[in-house]
Amino acid sequence: MTTRTGPPAPEIRHVTVVGCGLIGTSVALALRAEGVRVTLADHDPRSLSEAVRMGAGLALAAGEPPADVVVIATPPSTVAAVLRDAQARGLGAVYTDVASTKGRILSSAELTGCDMSTYVPGHPMAGREVSGTGAARADLFAGRKWALCPGPATALLAALTVTELAALCGAQVCLLSPYAHDRAVAAVSHAPLVLSAALAARFAYTREGADVLALTGRGLYDVTRVAGSPPELWIDILEHNAEAVADMLEQVVDDLAAVGAALREADGSARWGVVADLLVRGNLGRELIVDAYARRAPAEGVELEAA
Amino acid sequence: MTTRTGPPAPEIRHVTVVGCGLIGTSVALALRAEGVRVTLADHDPRSLSEAVRMGAGLALAAGEPPADVVVIATPPSTVAAVLRDAQARGLGAVYTDVASTKGRILSSAELTGCDMSTYVPGHPMAGREVSGTGAARADLFAGRKWALCPGPATALLAALTVTELAALCGAQVCLLSPYAHDRAVAAVSHAPLVLSAALAARFAYTREGADVLALTGRGLYDVTRVAGSPPELWIDILEHNAEAVADMLEQVVDDLAAVGAALREADGSARWGVVADLLVRGNLGRELIVDAYARRAPAEGVELEAA
Repeated sequence: MTTRTGPPAPEIRHVTVVGCGLIGTSVALALRAEGVRVTLADHDPRSLSEAVRMGAGLALAAGEPPADVVVIATPPSTVAAVLRDAQARGLGAVYTDVASTKGRILSSAELTGCDMSTYVPGHPMAGREVSGTGAARADLFAGRKWALCPGPATALLAALTVTELAALCGAQVCLLSPYAHDRAVAAVSHAPLVLSAALAARFAYTREGADVLALTGRGLYDVTRVAGSPPELWIDILEHNAEAVADMLEQVVDDLAAVGAALREADGSARWGVVADLLVRGNLGRELIVDAYARRAPAEGVELEAA
Repeated sequence: MTTRTGPPAPEIRHVTVVGCGLIGTSVALALRAEGVRVTLADHDPRSLSEAVRMGAGLALAAGEPPADVVVIATPPSTVAAVLRDAQARGLGAVYTDVASTKGRILSSAELTGCDMSTYVPGHPMAGREVSGTGAARADLFAGRKWALCPGPATALLAALTVTELAALCGAQVCLLSPYAHDRAVAAVSHAPLVLSAALAARFAYTREGADVLALTGRGLYDVTRVAGSPPELWIDILEHNAEAVADMLEQVVDDLAAVGAALREADGSARWGVVADLLVRGNLGRELIVDAYARRAPAEGVELEAA
């Protein structure tokens, strides 16, 4: 057991989750499993009633006392408006969100006049290639990182409360600046999804597709797994992290174009330097990715990483 | 049980495998499990003795009677020379190889004066991201496709014999022209490997790599899995299928560059058409890939697909 220094963890007894999709309902299920009272809201009554049926909590009723934490689990482009509305209604003492990008949401929240002292921007690093309420799982965050990106005005107690919420879900918090967070997720998540989609797209609309795909193996299956993710959600995510994703894509395109050109050159062993260089760098990068993935195993205590 | 029409399957009692890497040793192990006598050769005495220790067969001795089939499991660039040498030594009645490309090997074999009537170019669609003798498994080909690309001079009996060999390994044969084969594997295997390497390469040599990779999830892990493949083998494969791989890479680069440019554009909902189009095509392609992968389950009998 890791010894935790600093103030004791704030106690969380009641959480309101706004948005009963994959992430919101999974947070609710994880909290319910820890005995937390959960109230739920969603603009789609079917998602709400499905989440209630799954045991994720009760529908938020008018006149409910404020929750210890309000978790906003709606698409990135809606977070600032939902936050402002929730704060205006006094739904909770502390607010957090789970959107995949942070920089632009933080600016929008400031610009729309949200109370920035009680808002702790967050992003649990977990997901599935299937979406929707029905795909939610109580253990979705077990052993995962949960990024928190507090702004300059965020109160310490608010940050500690959301850290406790992440811990109740089985995740480990890491602290990042919104900028560092957005660059990192562009690299490990958003740009890889675009790459995966660009490869999978080659197999759409092709008459010969079936013949070609008869020879498919696990390689193509794995490389294109995230290409099955819901476009409507990802258009929103990519819009919110456009610059960082574009930077990463352009670097990948440079490498691919160089290899393509090398493959077109007339025979000559020198041109193979380009191909060998990419494959060797690919091996090195893959080793680091495998190491990082292996370190993702569940650990006790809460880890705070300044960045 | 599928009823097979045509001549009865030729009986295979003795096979010689030249090249005791992952594929050659896996073929040998699969055949040994079916009671076939296997003799082994490799220019590296350590690989040879490791394969013998694993029970893949006995080392090929001088004066051995010709095998029913000789399986050439050496890198693509060496196949034609190894085939010519094996035929000159009278090592077998029928010859096949397992290289990932077919067109250029077939031309080289013709140009170097091989007997094309007893040679059946082949390619079992199986592999692992780890290579070498020790990674071999008797069930590597179970339920997999095994492409055969006979040339105009290939004798029917030779093709039937290699079809039986593939069936003994648990695989299903599909017949393809060398050109169609090479385009198909560029699409489902070779270009995806280059893409995966280009993404993984972004995480090599970066000081900030560790911080960024702390947020990694299964998406990046899956997309970069094949980037761990051995560069020396893949340089050889890409050299042999350069044009088809370049065609595929250029199409992917076009899509990625268009999305990169759209992400750079000033705000405007029209530009999101480019991003949405790619993500939707990615979804469609992914569906077809998942279907094709699911159909890869083991099936009885031998399937012959003309293409």
